[in-house]
Amino acid sequence: MLGEWLLKSRPMSEILQGAAVIGQSGGPTVVINQSLVGFVQAAVPAEAITAVYGARHGVKGMMAGDLIDLGKESDSTLEAVAKVPAAALGSVRMKPTAEDVAKMIDTFRAKDIRYFFYIGGNDTAETAHIVAEQSAAQGYDMRCFHIPKTIDNDLRVTDHCPGYGSAARFVAHAFQGDDRDNRSLPGVKINVVMGRHAGWLTAASTLGRRHDEDGPHLVYLPERVFDPEQFIQDVQEVYGRLGRCIVAVSEGIHDADGKPFLQVYAERSGSAMAGMQDSHGNVQLSGTGALGDALANLVKERIEGIRVRADTFGYLQRSFPADASPIDQAEAREVGRAAVEAAIGGEHQSGSIALKRVEGGEYRCETMVTPLSTVAKHTKDMPEEFLSGHQGVSQAFLDYAMPLTGGITPMTDLEGHPVGS
Amino acid sequence: MLGEWLLKSRPMSEILQGAAVIGQSGGPTVVINQSLVGFVQAAVPAEAITAVYGARHGVKGMMAGDLIDLGKESDSTLEAVAKVPAAALGSVRMKPTAEDVAKMIDTFRAKDIRYFFYIGGNDTAETAHIVAEQSAAQGYDMRCFHIPKTIDNDLRVTDHCPGYGSAARFVAHAFQGDDRDNRSLPGVKINVVMGRHAGWLTAASTLGRRHDEDGPHLVYLPERVFDPEQFIQDVQEVYGRLGRCIVAVSEGIHDADGKPFLQVYAERSGSAMAGMQDSHGNVQLSGTGALGDALANLVKERIEGIRVRADTFGYLQRSFPADASPIDQAEAREVGRAAVEAAIGGEHQSGSIALKRVEGGEYRCETMVTPLSTVAKHTKDMPEEFLSGHQGVSQAFLDYAMPLTGGITPMTDLEGHPVGS
Repeated sequence: MLGEWLLKSRPMSEILQGAAVIGQSGGPTVVINQSLVGFVQAAVPAEAITAVYGARHGVKGMMAGDLIDLGKESDSTLEAVAKVPAAALGSVRMKPTAEDVAKMIDTFRAKDIRYFFYIGGNDTAETAHIVAEQSAAQGYDMRCFHIPKTIDNDLRVTDHCPGYGSAARFVAHAFQGDDRDNRSLPGVKINVVMGRHAGWLTAASTLGRRHDEDGPHLVYLPERVFDPEQFIQDVQEVYGRLGRCIVAVSEGIHDADGKPFLQVYAERSGSAMAGMQDSHGNVQLSGTGALGDALANLVKERIEGIRVRADTFGYLQRSFPADASPIDQAEAREVGRAAVEAAIGGEHQSGSIALKRVEGGEYRCETMVTPLSTVAKHTKDMPEEFLSGHQGVSQAFLDYAMPLTGGITPMTDLEGHPVGS
Repeated sequence: MLGEWLLKSRPMSEILQGAAVIGQSGGPTVVINQSLVGFVQAAVPAEAITAVYGARHGVKGMMAGDLIDLGKESDSTLEAVAKVPAAALGSVRMKPTAEDVAKMIDTFRAKDIRYFFYIGGNDTAETAHIVAEQSAAQGYDMRCFHIPKTIDNDLRVTDHCPGYGSAARFVAHAFQGDDRDNRSLPGVKINVVMGRHAGWLTAASTLGRRHDEDGPHLVYLPERVFDPEQFIQDVQEVYGRLGRCIVAVSEGIHDADGKPFLQVYAERSGSAMAGMQDSHGNVQLSGTGALGDALANLVKERIEGIRVRADTFGYLQRSFPADASPIDQAEAREVGRAAVEAAIGGEHQSGSIALKRVEGGEYRCETMVTPLSTVAKHTKDMPEEFLSGHQGVSQAFLDYAMPLTGGITPMTDLEGHPVGS
């Protein structure tokens, strides 16, 4: 196993006694607090851990000593907070400098913190890696663990990321509803889904389909080059066949040079789309409806007389509180708990918790520990076997993703018996 | 009662025997098929009703004779379809001309259809009214009933509209999640909610708040004039106080002359926003992120150094399948059933089913019949007692709307015990 490298390089025999601190980092998910609560419930009774602290807004709170005592939270509060979306401790987007980490270690020394846990994505894993290296360089004995979380599902090593299953469930349900809406009042409908570099979440738009006539009919992922001419042809083909067309588009679609489609479109359109660009001429991809509107405009320009609408699902994908995947909730809880076990177990000085799918039988995952360096920095695109043609996904993707959502119930049509003549 | 006018003007003693037809019209809701199924389950066993037909895409199907036999649908299919969003029969946006209605009556005569039911909003009620008048003028004995449905909640007479409770639940949950997201990573967040003329759905954004620090902090409704200067001042005040700000905006916000804000903004900005306008220079309000983006740009132009994002909830508000209000589902089923009872009861030749809140005790509504003319054409804005100042809603609104959603569970914060020194 990858984790064994660390084990062998640094044998640990004694039990490390001290306080633990945890922070949350990066974009929210609806199950990030399940991991927090799983962590607290495992850390509080652990003998090696003398106190359990939470840092407000991640490394910022650790630098400033802005900590709360998680050991004093009641069970009922913890169980309620577990179901609340987004970081209960507050989040942060910040890669700490060496000076920042020195400040953090000052806080750790002052509070005798020997266990560092950080919930987040690949940037968060990198921060944990930096803290691990810098504390070791200072000779401050400390265990550093990353707890995975991201709706983007783009972490390496792990089978999938806690947070993804719930976001995928929301997106699949959203497309099921929108497909019914579009059958009801036909037209072209374009929905923009989060995911700049990898198409995992956009691909989940297909999980509620029963057959070819169900939307989305077209699925554009950043793993493929987006060709506007091909897109128009695709829309024409589906619209000609079904009289309607639902399109799923990742916010990260780009041309052959990797330039975002929205940037290409804004440059081509000149001043008409100036509102989309910031003062540096870069386009803003999330928290705006610009990409959806640009694609809708493109269809309107090129295909006459079609009703075209665009929606951008936006932050709801990562924060809608009422449709979490029960599997995702349970796994997010479990990775928090597993991080405590790994840290106090003594086999690993540092690491990232990953999920490993058990082969055969019903869907089930186990946790494992992987070195921080294997998860930090780089991300994971969808593999070729999950893609299909220039747009769309394969059955292998559906088989992979469906269990993570807790299951998506297919929609039912009326039987539609003809009226007897 | 209003309904008695019809009763007195047209005494009916004989049982009218014949087939029934039902159609669905206007924008989808997630409970519109509950009404369809409530109707079918009541109509099939009714002795007066000889056959139960469904028209594809409303009046279009009735004109073309495009009907299905709903009496042959299995119970299990009906129960599954009841939970599916958007019109299972297909919808239509069309006010039939006298010629169109003549074609419909041809179909009715051919199939001996004596009962006409139409599920939809105020335009749908108007169509039912036109059909009632024209069939009477032709001497074709027919009963015509409107079954209410709209997420906009803007029908007259009825306490509220089936479809609204579920859309309100979705919007309340969406804002709860977005508020947590925004606490987690602070900034200004603007969310655009459906409702061109009335603020009912935007007002529902407040149903998950516990106190003043919970978002949305600002709620702009079309019942008030939208003043961009006041808006900027409001955002500055909230941001200064809390370091973040969540804004709920109805898509129908407008200036003192009733001109949509987006139109005002597009005209002021000139070509930079040209992409928002159609070939007639009118702005498109739904199925686009333009309004949210315009408001975000306004804040960025006027307040420096603030992170501003905008989302437009879009069609998810009327079609998201996984968060329906159980109260709304039950009431939508009930109005479908009540329409059949009213039609075969013989007291009313035509009418619209309305909900009447029973005063005192736990929330409960009864159905009643009101003349089509009282519901057709005109809509209902939020009353003054539900508004508060130049933005926001009153406690009276919250008391009115909360039961319709089935209840919104408040979010829970960590207790946040200080770390002992």
